[in-house]
Amino acid sequence: MRSIQDQLQAVLAAARPVHPLDVVLADAAGCVLAEDLRAPVSIPVRAIAAHDGYALESGAIAQVAPGRPVVLPVAHDVGADAAEPLRLAPAHAVRVSSGAPLPVGADVVVPVPYTDRGTARVEVHRVVAAGDGVRAAGTDAREGDVVIASGVRLGASQIGIASALGLRRLRVHPKPRVVVLPVGDELIEAGAPPRAGRVHDANGPMLTTAAQAVGASAHRAAIARDDRTALREAIEDQLVRADLLIITGGLGDGPDDTVRDVLAPLGTVRFDHVAMSPGQRLGFGTVEKEGDREPVPIFALPGDPVAAMVAFEVFVRPALRAIAGYAELFRTTLSATATAEWAVPSGLRQFVPATLTGTPGGGYRVTPLGDPLHTDLGSLARANAFAVVGERATRVAAGDAVHALVLDSHG
Amino acid sequence: MRSIQDQLQAVLAAARPVHPLDVVLADAAGCVLAEDLRAPVSIPVRAIAAHDGYALESGAIAQVAPGRPVVLPVAHDVGADAAEPLRLAPAHAVRVSSGAPLPVGADVVVPVPYTDRGTARVEVHRVVAAGDGVRAAGTDAREGDVVIASGVRLGASQIGIASALGLRRLRVHPKPRVVVLPVGDELIEAGAPPRAGRVHDANGPMLTTAAQAVGASAHRAAIARDDRTALREAIEDQLVRADLLIITGGLGDGPDDTVRDVLAPLGTVRFDHVAMSPGQRLGFGTVEKEGDREPVPIFALPGDPVAAMVAFEVFVRPALRAIAGYAELFRTTLSATATAEWAVPSGLRQFVPATLTGTPGGGYRVTPLGDPLHTDLGSLARANAFAVVGERATRVAAGDAVHALVLDSHG
Repeated sequence: MRSIQDQLQAVLAAARPVHPLDVVLADAAGCVLAEDLRAPVSIPVRAIAAHDGYALESGAIAQVAPGRPVVLPVAHDVGADAAEPLRLAPAHAVRVSSGAPLPVGADVVVPVPYTDRGTARVEVHRVVAAGDGVRAAGTDAREGDVVIASGVRLGASQIGIASALGLRRLRVHPKPRVVVLPVGDELIEAGAPPRAGRVHDANGPMLTTAAQAVGASAHRAAIARDDRTALREAIEDQLVRADLLIITGGLGDGPDDTVRDVLAPLGTVRFDHVAMSPGQRLGFGTVEKEGDREPVPIFALPGDPVAAMVAFEVFVRPALRAIAGYAELFRTTLSATATAEWAVPSGLRQFVPATLTGTPGGGYRVTPLGDPLHTDLGSLARANAFAVVGERATRVAAGDAVHALVLDSHG
Repeated sequence: MRSIQDQLQAVLAAARPVHPLDVVLADAAGCVLAEDLRAPVSIPVRAIAAHDGYALESGAIAQVAPGRPVVLPVAHDVGADAAEPLRLAPAHAVRVSSGAPLPVGADVVVPVPYTDRGTARVEVHRVVAAGDGVRAAGTDAREGDVVIASGVRLGASQIGIASALGLRRLRVHPKPRVVVLPVGDELIEAGAPPRAGRVHDANGPMLTTAAQAVGASAHRAAIARDDRTALREAIEDQLVRADLLIITGGLGDGPDDTVRDVLAPLGTVRFDHVAMSPGQRLGFGTVEKEGDREPVPIFALPGDPVAAMVAFEVFVRPALRAIAGYAELFRTTLSATATAEWAVPSGLRQFVPATLTGTPGGGYRVTPLGDPLHTDLGSLARANAFAVVGERATRVAAGDAVHALVLDSHG
């Protein structure tokens, strides 16, 4: 029996980030930046007005006091699209729009509501400090500075600054391409009419959705039958289009369970019993891809849906995060108080679908859903966490502290 | 000046969930379920083997003890794809694959490793309790029971159980369609060569990414110029394809600022100064769409990128969550200790790009990025939170408790 830790170490040793690519901004959103982004120009490139108003030299309005406005002639209007800054005449004002180049000699932009909104001359009613209403050159980014560090996930504000810098493409780790291949003679497609002896494929759509939720570009391949030749061909077909392959089902002890026979001779794939519940049976390894630099990690997950999802959470998700270039591979785990007692299989790390409630300040409580020794998909679909109990425990008592692995929120 | 609370109330009153639609499972992933989903059948539909092994009646192995195995004749092999359960002969065993129908009369499946793996007869070495290795009918879902409640976001495990039930389509609130329309003569597209008096459009790509991160199907429209007729046409064009429209820029006091003139006569749109910093200027209302039942909410956000993102976070994101059918509309807000002092504009709620560090147990610390009175896009791109300071404060001292609005993680 292999420990979860040893298995995870083997998985992560094989999960290398996808080679960086220059992709257009719209595709870069949600990816991890693969190298420091330095500003090719400063933004703004020169001092501009931060709002609509009157640009002037602050000394010209130093005498403004309540009931004693200062009046200045207005020399020009300047819009945000003006090509070059004007030169301010002494003791004059220039009407400027937000974003307009600050006239040379001006050091302040008096906001419109502090004035009489004059066009030929303007009355300034309130004093404004030097620098107010001005965005200095380089306020948002200074030429040459790192504006987004390598390893950062590109969200809205990172796409915003890259756009402001005029960039079309960013060098990122592209989203991993994942193929999910369900295996089994008993499986039928969603929507196919129910038949005796057939079950609808749950793991294909479920694991595809799970991989997409990690940011992968995932699709489900057609169900493969328990036939060695057909399965080998299906795997070869899918390998060329995958950065990671997930096979589910066909892992049992029976003569029809073909996955081991087909995968074992491929690359470094090995099959282990891992000390976890539900689950245990797990295949993992890498297969070289012709003409490609990185071998492709392949997972063979159990056919039981809850066991498959636990194995996905424990092994596949961290691997996908590593392939996508994330530094942080793991979900949040909290310490929570168990609200019920339950039995734990000896020597195995137990994962129980559970309801987690509570707050950072008030502490967390975790309640198992369904039968912890015989986990079921209905309970998993209602869970927002897994209660995780260590290998040495044989029982959880109400009030015990256990770990809770926090899943994506429900709503 | 309008309070944030009053403005938010007006926004949420107009943000109604998109009408439910039946969509295929692959498109339902990530959407909110619009009505309780009841299981049309039980899964499993009948008792099945939970793993490979030997199905038998537990009384037949009650006498098993260390060194004293019980030997039973093996009557049949049954695979997971068998159409009908067999009837177990008394004191016999049936070899079954995981998922096979449990023979009538059997109440246990002895796992293969507890046996000698016999085919004509089998030696059972370890006693197993009645019910072990059996998945009773309805273990995952019982016919008629609610398996996913209305209002739940459909993640991997919900797609899993819907697939297991054989469903092709689910009734969901479809993803809101969002159009982002940047306005301004000074704007040029990302990648266009820099020119004096022109700035690259940051808000279009940024707000589009932000809307996508909330789960919307968002796209950026072509930049609209400061021309009333052209802007009116652009808005009318985009309204037919949007469940929510975001206009950004063109909100100033100058003669070229057209957004107010064009939007004010439309539907219920009104323009306010909202008591927040950065930001303040905000247009919001709804416009009737021909042939459509729900009027379309329209936001007019400031052209300043940080002000636009703050307005997005405070008003647009909750509206999008409401339209997508979520019950929980708001991001997590934590109490955090300020690590620096800074000034707060009087009478306004202040949002400062900030670095949030800490843990639920150890408390949180928040450090402002850039100049809190003059927020900048470079700081926002490095932030993982906004420090939020209430309207009555005029200063934050190091050590003060402030709110931190937690943004999406960086990596």
